[in-house]
Amino acid sequence: MYKINDNYQKLPGSYLFSTIGKKVSAYVKDHPDQEVIRLGIGDVTQPLAPSIIGAMHRAVDEMGCAETFHGYAPELGYEFLREAIVKGDYEARGCHIRADEIFVSDGAKCDCSNIQELFHVDNVVAVCDPVYPVYVDSNVMAGRTGTYDAATGMWSDVIYMPCTEENGFCPVLPQKTPDLIYLCYPNNPTGAAITRAELQRWVDYANEKGALILYDAAYEAYISQEDVPHTIYECEGARTCAIEFKSFSKNAGFTGVRLGYTVVPKDLVCGGVSLHSMWARRHGTKYNGAPYIIQRAGEAVYSEEGRAQLKEQVAYYMKNAAWIRDGLAGAGYTVYGGVNAPYVWLKVPAGMTSWEFFDDLLERAGVVGTPGSGFGPSGEGYFRLTGFGSYENTQKAVERIRKLG
Amino acid sequence: MYKINDNYQKLPGSYLFSTIGKKVSAYVKDHPDQEVIRLGIGDVTQPLAPSIIGAMHRAVDEMGCAETFHGYAPELGYEFLREAIVKGDYEARGCHIRADEIFVSDGAKCDCSNIQELFHVDNVVAVCDPVYPVYVDSNVMAGRTGTYDAATGMWSDVIYMPCTEENGFCPVLPQKTPDLIYLCYPNNPTGAAITRAELQRWVDYANEKGALILYDAAYEAYISQEDVPHTIYECEGARTCAIEFKSFSKNAGFTGVRLGYTVVPKDLVCGGVSLHSMWARRHGTKYNGAPYIIQRAGEAVYSEEGRAQLKEQVAYYMKNAAWIRDGLAGAGYTVYGGVNAPYVWLKVPAGMTSWEFFDDLLERAGVVGTPGSGFGPSGEGYFRLTGFGSYENTQKAVERIRKLG
Repeated sequence: MYKINDNYQKLPGSYLFSTIGKKVSAYVKDHPDQEVIRLGIGDVTQPLAPSIIGAMHRAVDEMGCAETFHGYAPELGYEFLREAIVKGDYEARGCHIRADEIFVSDGAKCDCSNIQELFHVDNVVAVCDPVYPVYVDSNVMAGRTGTYDAATGMWSDVIYMPCTEENGFCPVLPQKTPDLIYLCYPNNPTGAAITRAELQRWVDYANEKGALILYDAAYEAYISQEDVPHTIYECEGARTCAIEFKSFSKNAGFTGVRLGYTVVPKDLVCGGVSLHSMWARRHGTKYNGAPYIIQRAGEAVYSEEGRAQLKEQVAYYMKNAAWIRDGLAGAGYTVYGGVNAPYVWLKVPAGMTSWEFFDDLLERAGVVGTPGSGFGPSGEGYFRLTGFGSYENTQKAVERIRKLG
Repeated sequence: MYKINDNYQKLPGSYLFSTIGKKVSAYVKDHPDQEVIRLGIGDVTQPLAPSIIGAMHRAVDEMGCAETFHGYAPELGYEFLREAIVKGDYEARGCHIRADEIFVSDGAKCDCSNIQELFHVDNVVAVCDPVYPVYVDSNVMAGRTGTYDAATGMWSDVIYMPCTEENGFCPVLPQKTPDLIYLCYPNNPTGAAITRAELQRWVDYANEKGALILYDAAYEAYISQEDVPHTIYECEGARTCAIEFKSFSKNAGFTGVRLGYTVVPKDLVCGGVSLHSMWARRHGTKYNGAPYIIQRAGEAVYSEEGRAQLKEQVAYYMKNAAWIRDGLAGAGYTVYGGVNAPYVWLKVPAGMTSWEFFDDLLERAGVVGTPGSGFGPSGEGYFRLTGFGSYENTQKAVERIRKLG
């Protein structure tokens, strides 16, 4: 009689977005004439840039012709894309990453959640709190997190690193030494950035302790300040202690296109074993490459025309984020983020919980955001709004919130 | 200090295709004027059908327009595709599979290798021998296979079910009871098919023993005989003991397009836990959907025009397979497969190993195939040729082999 992986049974229900969905549905039913503005989820709304559309049309045509048809892709991804990534994202910033250290995939979510397979089940994981739930949940499924305490919303074997107003949403080095450290900067959900000097401290710490940093740089394109690193490899020594994940979802609007990549430097060696070889083996055994058409779309992201168009797209979303940030600050809210990230993280009014603020905002303004407590215990008292809506809706939402008084 | 998942270290090198690659490179270097014909790997060569190309161009245009742009896809896949799959692949065959039991993905390889995550590490796996290496390797990585014996090429805790000339390449029920049974029909690499009655025996066995069948139907489109089932759900009772994997790679030429789906019936319950819920949780946590454009391409596969075009494409490859099969039979070879599958499985001449035949064929005919022993110990003495080349090359290859005498 087969048996299941009972780690799955330990997972609490994914209440956050389903609860939001139910509350919004109920509201819509009761208020059929009220237009609901959704600034909750991190999905983009702007169409793909013309240069990307053009590249995909050309690639589709190639697939329709025997002479230019493409079957199985090379295991690490097409050379044309890996070379473009290296030039655009690393060489341009003085980082030494080679094309054969880039693994093209269908998105950072898959890579972020699959990477833990390379490590021993006994390794201790550290995460920021609040945090993107995928890092923790993928480790729960693998049996690496101990037991769940529903009262605190915490796992017994996970090291939580609070990111709060007090520390500028940048965690302090943990007291207990972790093996695997998940960092995401610019951060989802807080919208905070990390400076180069601060990140260097983490790199030094990891190298000293023999820990590995799993660095999620999904929101890198939104960085506006000089002292904020675009990649962890801007820090000295990162090649021996860090894997980096990159998404095309937010810089190029690829949430429905699906493309990402992971950098596994060849200098990452653990007990004589190359993590690059391990990830290559996983890629070869359990994955079959991103579509040719999509890899051509990715290449267009790095073209001169593509860059210019995407710069505008990012500016559009950042204008929204600034509008939210400034509008709410003007209305007396304490707001964070929105400078190097498309997320605004606001403090809910004193005396309210994140969920109470959610209900209030939906009921009185018809605006949907995300309660901070949904991202972890230290998110309580905060609320996330995103700049990914349309400019018109964002303006309307801010106007409605300001009117609440 | 972090530690690696040491199960990866147990994996023997993936010598098969790298060894083939090296041998071919050396041959090409020594024989610069000889045209090498590759009938080794299972990649397709025909361009995508016009109806699919048209659907993708339309979808690309939609992505370029704010009103029709698509961000994150629904977790299980778009309704339009899941409905088309249910109608085309299940209702048409009298099978009761609902759209919410279909999980759209970027290919059967990912699903086949990820599915084992749902099960306990102690579960005993049974595989056919010879076999597609992904089933075993993904279980090795998870620590489910015991120790490897290099002499026999077998893992201590895996049940191998020999598929040989004697049993018509259809395994007999194993003596030791397995928990998870991988079956692939029509089969890669042997090209053998299973009859409905034979498959029913496996379904009955699994239900009786409390085992789960993981059924890979990637080559279903190549079935030509009436008594061969297109899906395991043609068998009574399969909804309580089988998960099915389907690829678009071979029926629609999507090896470089990437689309597949997995059927997890809601009747699959283990100790009160729904496998459907578990797979949905995995999908939601570790995956972010197949691209919108590609899901539209998948929908076109089921259109009237698409079906007609793909029927021709499959016929093209099957004409190649028949040409190989008949040509080699005429030259005195014992050949199998090629009737319900694009693979021809031939016995190598007496006194030769699979690898010796490989070398001989390359050296004297400039034709590349795959040595059967690369797929498992019971593949020794056999050799795989595929119908996925061009018709012209296939004719040339057969002609050259016949001339060897």
